[in-house]
Amino acid sequence: MEMTLRLIVKRLSGLGERKAIQLICGVLSKGNEAIGIGDDCAAFEFGEEYLLVSTDIITAETHIHKKMTPWQIGWFVVAINLSDIAAKGGKPLGLVLALGLPRSISDIFLKELMEGADLCATTHGASIVGGDTKENPNVTICGTVFGTVKKNEFMGRKGAKPGDVVAVTGTLGKAGVGHYALQHGIENREITRGLFEPSPRLKEGMVLAGLKVINSCMDISDGLSSSLYQLQELNNVGFEIEKERIPLAQDLVKLASQENLDAYEYGLHFGGDYELLLTVPPSKFEEVQRSVEKTGTSLTVIGHVTKNREIHVVDGGSKKILPNGGYEHFRGSSFC
Amino acid sequence: MEMTLRLIVKRLSGLGERKAIQLICGVLSKGNEAIGIGDDCAAFEFGEEYLLVSTDIITAETHIHKKMTPWQIGWFVVAINLSDIAAKGGKPLGLVLALGLPRSISDIFLKELMEGADLCATTHGASIVGGDTKENPNVTICGTVFGTVKKNEFMGRKGAKPGDVVAVTGTLGKAGVGHYALQHGIENREITRGLFEPSPRLKEGMVLAGLKVINSCMDISDGLSSSLYQLQELNNVGFEIEKERIPLAQDLVKLASQENLDAYEYGLHFGGDYELLLTVPPSKFEEVQRSVEKTGTSLTVIGHVTKNREIHVVDGGSKKILPNGGYEHFRGSSFC
Repeated sequence: MEMTLRLIVKRLSGLGERKAIQLICGVLSKGNEAIGIGDDCAAFEFGEEYLLVSTDIITAETHIHKKMTPWQIGWFVVAINLSDIAAKGGKPLGLVLALGLPRSISDIFLKELMEGADLCATTHGASIVGGDTKENPNVTICGTVFGTVKKNEFMGRKGAKPGDVVAVTGTLGKAGVGHYALQHGIENREITRGLFEPSPRLKEGMVLAGLKVINSCMDISDGLSSSLYQLQELNNVGFEIEKERIPLAQDLVKLASQENLDAYEYGLHFGGDYELLLTVPPSKFEEVQRSVEKTGTSLTVIGHVTKNREIHVVDGGSKKILPNGGYEHFRGSSFC
Repeated sequence: MEMTLRLIVKRLSGLGERKAIQLICGVLSKGNEAIGIGDDCAAFEFGEEYLLVSTDIITAETHIHKKMTPWQIGWFVVAINLSDIAAKGGKPLGLVLALGLPRSISDIFLKELMEGADLCATTHGASIVGGDTKENPNVTICGTVFGTVKKNEFMGRKGAKPGDVVAVTGTLGKAGVGHYALQHGIENREITRGLFEPSPRLKEGMVLAGLKVINSCMDISDGLSSSLYQLQELNNVGFEIEKERIPLAQDLVKLASQENLDAYEYGLHFGGDYELLLTVPPSKFEEVQRSVEKTGTSLTVIGHVTKNREIHVVDGGSKKILPNGGYEHFRGSSFC
């Protein structure tokens, strides 16, 4: 039987990324980690803390836009790694960066890339402590971050409960509007900054974790709808999202009105925002919101967790199933 | 002045890998790490221990031989990461693997790759705890390992003292003979195993560290001569290596005699062996050797550390400067 099955060779493009991750999880032995594959970070017991580890790999062909400066590439790869620590309420310790670079790359490219990476790390209380350089036909950068969180403050993806309030930090669609602008030749560094220079929500994550009332948390790097579907699967719950409560980025609202776009499509489905999505008991929400807003970042209720496993979006009077618009190609998202 | 300098754009192929690393080190801010760039691992204070972290990236174009099976690729990337922990006397906790894969890769390739990676990790007391999958035109795999070592057992690259005995674990040229066999169409899985399935010297590293007498230690992934030049630079010392004492792999000796090769060229200059190179006061060597040999691995004196900064190789009656035959192209070696 197994021999027969082995003859059915599937290509990853047909398999899709989530199935590829399931395949990987099926192979791996469980080790001494407390939390492994399936959350933003892996976590190990380390005295009273967890040691958090996460890794992200990006490449010029599929993840580095041609308009990104080397400085922005460096900033970006560090920011997306730090975001995984933020989502667990962790404090970053440091990062290692592995650089796969073509021989034709200039030393100025390398210098600027490292300056962007260094500034993003130091701005967020971390540092780049090592790495690797190797030749690669395509610019490919792999960052790995590690940090710590007190065990009783760790915010996992698992834990969402029916009745919980669903909230997001900041605004959505910052990356989406940047992407739209680039596609349509709108040159505006302010608009593309949301896409190329995301801010990991570390301060906010640490504040949230310290309150010890968050039931579940993840970053929405894959987009809001994709993230909700991931929480649904892990927690065996559903969601009711109120479309008009989704906090949209101002640049998005402005451009959408000029270009006659549905801004909510970007807010709901476009990845790359690196905000935090969390669920919390309604009785605790006010305290949570007050604490987060002291960091200068908004926290907005966008719906609630339901027992029914479907994910609905309420738009005025109508209620529809929310499509899963995230990157379910063999293109993105992490298995850690 | 700076503007003028900035116009002299150097390509990395001209710059070379060590200069690229110097450039990177010049850019990075020092953070809270105890030991950063320049050793096999970065190290952070973690109570009475150091947290060790290291990363390695490999790609199909330059580092994955066409004859490697997916299983061997998985084993290899984990083994070379674990070797960095071994060189510091550390105990591995776990690894994360980031996979950049073309869409055309089959699910069987992915499954076998993960099986090789998983077995290498579990064989050495570690586990793969997470990772990332992304599309990449070329198979590119980045592994990051983390582990711990007691602070007073950490074996750094710095510390070699004139008069120290220089020794290596195991035998050299295992990777070299595998490479020669492949280049010359000699199909022999036993011979290529040394190249494709290296064994990280974790047990040996932990035994060495526990003795607390090792003055300096590193792995010789870049080749013996290259490693000696790295220790020379860091420690401001020299070496006298006795060519005939270099423990050569049996397969190498046999093939060299059949093919009329100079086996010592492979033992001295070829990378990929992942043995440990160490220096220790002569009065302690016997104890060290006895302890390492209890693990089933030999430890062989190949020379001593000199005050004179040159590196000589003694061959019978003659003494010559040892050429630095390692990979000083923009191709290899890590900056961590």
